[in-house]
Amino acid sequence: MFHFDLHATSGAARAGVFHTPHGTVPTPVFAPVGTQATVKAVTPRDLRTLGASLILSNTYHLYMRPGDKLIAEMGGLHRFMGWDGAILTDSGGFQVFSLGALRVVDDEGVTFRSHLDGSTHRFTPEKSIQIQHHLGADIIMCFDECPPPLDREVVQAACERTHAWAKRCVEEHQRSGDSTRQALFGIVQGGIFPDLRAWSARTLTQLNFPGYAVGGLAVGETKTQMLTTLEQTVPLLPADRPRYLMGVGSPEDLVTGVARGIDIFDCVLPTRVARNGSALTRRGRINMRNLQYASDSAPLEEGCQCYACLNFSKAYIRHLVKANEILGHHLLTLHNLHLLITLMREMRAAIINDTFNQYAADFLANYRPSSKEANAPSVM
Amino acid sequence: MFHFDLHATSGAARAGVFHTPHGTVPTPVFAPVGTQATVKAVTPRDLRTLGASLILSNTYHLYMRPGDKLIAEMGGLHRFMGWDGAILTDSGGFQVFSLGALRVVDDEGVTFRSHLDGSTHRFTPEKSIQIQHHLGADIIMCFDECPPPLDREVVQAACERTHAWAKRCVEEHQRSGDSTRQALFGIVQGGIFPDLRAWSARTLTQLNFPGYAVGGLAVGETKTQMLTTLEQTVPLLPADRPRYLMGVGSPEDLVTGVARGIDIFDCVLPTRVARNGSALTRRGRINMRNLQYASDSAPLEEGCQCYACLNFSKAYIRHLVKANEILGHHLLTLHNLHLLITLMREMRAAIINDTFNQYAADFLANYRPSSKEANAPSVM
Repeated sequence: MFHFDLHATSGAARAGVFHTPHGTVPTPVFAPVGTQATVKAVTPRDLRTLGASLILSNTYHLYMRPGDKLIAEMGGLHRFMGWDGAILTDSGGFQVFSLGALRVVDDEGVTFRSHLDGSTHRFTPEKSIQIQHHLGADIIMCFDECPPPLDREVVQAACERTHAWAKRCVEEHQRSGDSTRQALFGIVQGGIFPDLRAWSARTLTQLNFPGYAVGGLAVGETKTQMLTTLEQTVPLLPADRPRYLMGVGSPEDLVTGVARGIDIFDCVLPTRVARNGSALTRRGRINMRNLQYASDSAPLEEGCQCYACLNFSKAYIRHLVKANEILGHHLLTLHNLHLLITLMREMRAAIINDTFNQYAADFLANYRPSSKEANAPSVM
Repeated sequence: MFHFDLHATSGAARAGVFHTPHGTVPTPVFAPVGTQATVKAVTPRDLRTLGASLILSNTYHLYMRPGDKLIAEMGGLHRFMGWDGAILTDSGGFQVFSLGALRVVDDEGVTFRSHLDGSTHRFTPEKSIQIQHHLGADIIMCFDECPPPLDREVVQAACERTHAWAKRCVEEHQRSGDSTRQALFGIVQGGIFPDLRAWSARTLTQLNFPGYAVGGLAVGETKTQMLTTLEQTVPLLPADRPRYLMGVGSPEDLVTGVARGIDIFDCVLPTRVARNGSALTRRGRINMRNLQYASDSAPLEEGCQCYACLNFSKAYIRHLVKANEILGHHLLTLHNLHLLITLMREMRAAIINDTFNQYAADFLANYRPSSKEANAPSVM
């Protein structure tokens, strides 16, 4: 059921299709994040119109509320949230490690307290996989330890644990899962250390996963460190499996990530900055609260074909944001997702035409990154 | 440009069409409220899909933010908010009178302080009409005094003022407006006192408005008092002009209002209760936070054809409401507006078939009103 067809390459960039039980996912792909079984402020109908083929949802959050068993009882996550495209769930690992003082790690798993009510819970690799079975996403992830990427000793210990847990995840998936219905991806750790990355890639690929994530990035290292790590790690992953860079999704990171052979991205950035009143554009991020837009009759971005840009002015969207109207969140979310999904589509075409390098250079020449797009850890 | 065609009657209930520069409005009609130039949590595209033909927006709010002159500069309210159907603006009178201690009334107008920043402003009948000219709604309203309906002396004084102000509104509209582009409606006051209502209706109809509102109801009187007042007042209004009951929109009030010859309604109820997590149904209001819906796989209302009911379970919508997700507000708003707009369509068909009394009796027999649907004053 799951297989990855590589259609074209242009330098290290790849264009392919990942086949899932809920449709084909053309890659490179950006997956909007639906933390709590909804991509915030948009409908599944909107996501289809935008051209989304894959979305991410969060195991930790859904386990907490409304509960993975309830979702299973309701027919699984696709049916529960009314999304018949592909879904990827994370393992919950990143979230529980982000809980900081609220969690204790041992070699067997992680004990933690709920961010909602303080109740005590425990995730193990087996438990994470079982929860992900209940949710029923097409792509599920190994339970890993995602450490701060710069401390070699910490990263090495996290690799040991991640490797042991990956094996246990595979065993649990073989024992109680259905690999024709759900594909379990491995996660390569190793921080910014090339030898640890190589070790992790070697260990993980021996388990023959249908796809691999490069984990532990965008959590505190510099952009240069992230890109160097990708350049060192991606070539160690099998060419016939999709490669997923977790939690990355600023426009520039998508372009530089694709340039280094990444196929799948997810990030809360487009939906989160929308709710903060900002629009992503091909020239950088703009804050709609700024007075300069108060009587600006132009759309968020000239030439953009999204519903927001085809129908509304910056002045109107600024008014909505200032008045804290839900429609402001909705229109900015539509626009931001449209931009990222359109970028992926354009990159895919450029790869197929073998003009990706020129496309990337042109895009980056116009794009002014926001200081706020520096990598920073975040739970949701 | 403006005219009202009466197509059929069934008892006192009427089916017609009001023609405006932004399309025809089949009556009876429910107008969703877009206080701040957006019907909260839905798009203009959604409103079209729901079958809305007329929406209301609030002069006071738009004057305050973003400002009526800005909206005029942006091409008027229709273009600003991307809604090409008909729009009705209130006069701002109800809002400034609702400010209580923040306003002082004299015979010339009302001085008040902004609810946003405390700055001092003054509305007169002329000013209200000028603002409404800037906004450019199809139907604009006279600046009136809306008093508590039960104190005869207060109501009588408010009628005097309302009548004098109505004349000034007509004069200002003739002086600086365009009656082919904007229809100015009169507002009959008089509280619960039949002789005052008769006096107000007589005085207002002498000014030959293209439509008449019954004002000063749903602000503190009982339901019985409201209905009795309608029965006494509506027959005094010309049959060839639409009749508008301001600020009323619970399902039962729509049915009982249509039964008494009302053609136009507006109310924040469907959109506001949606954001509070409640769904309107043909059997009454349901609070989606209730535990009983946690694993309820049925839609909000069996047989409902709205997007929310066709695609999502009560369990999912409850999850969204509990998790405070925007999609929960959106889906409940769609459903609630769909119900009211569908009720109006069904009533219109029943009037044309001359089966309205049976329709109304059947509807009311099934419907259990919420105690929260008692008339209560409200600024927005």
